[in-house]
Amino acid sequence: MKRNALYAQSGGVTSVINASAYGVVSEAFKSPEIDRVFAAVNGINGVMTESWYDMGNQDPVQISRILYTPGAVFGSCRKKLTKNEEFERLFRVLDTHDIGFFFYNGGNDSMDTALKVALIAQDLGYPLQVVGIPKTVDNDLEGTDHCPGYGSAAKYTATSIMEATRDVISMSADSTQVFIMESMGRHAGWLTASASLASLSGNPGPQILLFPEEPFDQERFLEKVESSVIKDGYCSIVASEGIKCKDGQFLSASSHQDAFGNVQLGKVGYVLETIINTHLSRKIHVCVPDYLQRSSRHLSSYIDWKEAIEVGQAAVTFATTQRCPGIMVSINRIQNHPYQKTYTSTPLDQIANNTKTLPVEYIIPGEMMVRPAFFDYALPLIQGEAPNLWVEGLPAHASLARD
Amino acid sequence: MKRNALYAQSGGVTSVINASAYGVVSEAFKSPEIDRVFAAVNGINGVMTESWYDMGNQDPVQISRILYTPGAVFGSCRKKLTKNEEFERLFRVLDTHDIGFFFYNGGNDSMDTALKVALIAQDLGYPLQVVGIPKTVDNDLEGTDHCPGYGSAAKYTATSIMEATRDVISMSADSTQVFIMESMGRHAGWLTASASLASLSGNPGPQILLFPEEPFDQERFLEKVESSVIKDGYCSIVASEGIKCKDGQFLSASSHQDAFGNVQLGKVGYVLETIINTHLSRKIHVCVPDYLQRSSRHLSSYIDWKEAIEVGQAAVTFATTQRCPGIMVSINRIQNHPYQKTYTSTPLDQIANNTKTLPVEYIIPGEMMVRPAFFDYALPLIQGEAPNLWVEGLPAHASLARD
Repeated sequence: MKRNALYAQSGGVTSVINASAYGVVSEAFKSPEIDRVFAAVNGINGVMTESWYDMGNQDPVQISRILYTPGAVFGSCRKKLTKNEEFERLFRVLDTHDIGFFFYNGGNDSMDTALKVALIAQDLGYPLQVVGIPKTVDNDLEGTDHCPGYGSAAKYTATSIMEATRDVISMSADSTQVFIMESMGRHAGWLTASASLASLSGNPGPQILLFPEEPFDQERFLEKVESSVIKDGYCSIVASEGIKCKDGQFLSASSHQDAFGNVQLGKVGYVLETIINTHLSRKIHVCVPDYLQRSSRHLSSYIDWKEAIEVGQAAVTFATTQRCPGIMVSINRIQNHPYQKTYTSTPLDQIANNTKTLPVEYIIPGEMMVRPAFFDYALPLIQGEAPNLWVEGLPAHASLARD
Repeated sequence: MKRNALYAQSGGVTSVINASAYGVVSEAFKSPEIDRVFAAVNGINGVMTESWYDMGNQDPVQISRILYTPGAVFGSCRKKLTKNEEFERLFRVLDTHDIGFFFYNGGNDSMDTALKVALIAQDLGYPLQVVGIPKTVDNDLEGTDHCPGYGSAAKYTATSIMEATRDVISMSADSTQVFIMESMGRHAGWLTASASLASLSGNPGPQILLFPEEPFDQERFLEKVESSVIKDGYCSIVASEGIKCKDGQFLSASSHQDAFGNVQLGKVGYVLETIINTHLSRKIHVCVPDYLQRSSRHLSSYIDWKEAIEVGQAAVTFATTQRCPGIMVSINRIQNHPYQKTYTSTPLDQIANNTKTLPVEYIIPGEMMVRPAFFDYALPLIQGEAPNLWVEGLPAHASLARD
């Protein structure tokens, strides 16, 4: 007997989270075990209020455009379910609409929620297959070699710092000599590390990468800024928003206050600018891509985009063939040359709610740089350019209809 | 009798200034009047020190890659020649190397320098054809309908705010509701205006654009932020770095100081964030693309890139066929539907050293938005996607050899 499927998006978005949505929806349409396919508005919020898109009622042209649309096309959320009455409400909704398959597309917090939902379903004897679909630009989710979304944000980061470094070099004779890009990644340096790919094949790239995994050493930092300018004529820096001082405090919180005395987080680029200005005489520019780093769908990696689709498809396959109540789709790397991977399922209770940080073996201690082993890991993930749909000079995105 | 040509890049770069360089070099190679083609290292600095690339000695593969390379591939400069001895030195260098054609690729300041060089050549009786080649992302140069470089930066700006706005909308249910992008443009609002293109064809786009041409009205601004969030669920803002208060002071200078008490310019996004935080309860994200806005060659407009090449080619044609000592290549728009233009030459002494600001007829007073007439102006300039050379997942740029 067919049952209905519910898909929801959660947490910060990636440029390819909608590719996973497309994978789930298109595969669910084909499944002999799935009847209707709903996509919740604003993640779990929409489930609680029975607000969703009935995907069977959508224009197929708009469904195909989901593949090219950044953000979370159905809306995402930061909501965590914690109270008993919230879970009771959730299961009343699932029961009313005969939801037998629940797909939750998110990061660490979302996998924790997915596990809770699976466990409560078991307790209640409510037949529900919960499948977590990984996504995060931060790449900090356990239980998978890498996360869909990371490859695209890495490609954006490496390309952007490559282009900006060319800019700085052109100006460095008598103007800007130091460029700082602030990168997302509060607790993990994966995105900052990806900037290193810019200097492969002999291109000029960043000489300094600052990771949350390595305590900030102001003296070494200033030394390397100055020696880079003297040696190369410029210094290009990528810094994670979450770099910390030796005492464990966020660098951004330690010394930077706005005009009203409020401590500002996520402005580490300007703290570094102030530090350099105070000690060195070099003209500096600072760039904070912020959301552009995770929503620049126009520059997504083809491999990442394709894997995002396939992870969504695999979620449906696993949901209808496996009987472990709560699983996440994992990407398992088989080899790098040529790059090969498989998709498997991992029980949600085996995925610790931990942040997977950049391994120390990828970092050269004190050098503010990665080792070549990181290139082997990251390079396959940025290969190829995901197709875009350009109309009149701008990207065309999906426009979905609520009933 | 053949004479030599010298090309130099000056001022802030664009993502297609090298396309103009390619246009000059490739056309000069074909000219029966031009012998050797030199490209100065770091603009006028390299001329003064006789540091240049002899383009005849370059690998043709690398010359073709100039078309895909951001920044100023030969190096740019902020140097202005002012002293008599500097001009004397310049003309000694030109004479020593039999330079008969001087191509100067830059913005307002550079055209002023080009004019001075042309006038001094006349005074000295030194036979020199000076040709200015326009470039600036700010689009604020007189004497041309628009500047090469603007269309690409406009395409980047519109695409990026379109993608980021999708991101904010996805998060707006229970997280970020206000997004601010700080745009380049200290004195002219052309780039900020280009963000309006994002909302053509019914896409969600920015509801607020803040131009240097309109004094900042804090009360109206806060009203529109709040009403946008209430009506649309989000508010997306693009603000020129150079917006001013009613008293004419830069908003960024008026209230924002760093932790050391230094007044910071170019941080208008964070001043606006502070203003909103002080008066409204909305979660805000701020993005400062900085150099990415002018160096993102991966997202250049095809029309802009093609015009940049053609302007370089026209410069050579005009240099060898016209006998006005100092000219600039101008783009003249013939019509919009379909878009057509011609290239003509304008005497440098007719180009006032003025900033061409965004005309008031493009701005809806008090609404912080442009009129549809602006779309007619800007839309043709962002059409098509300039080709890129991708190798192993990243752009491939030119690598030139010094002798």
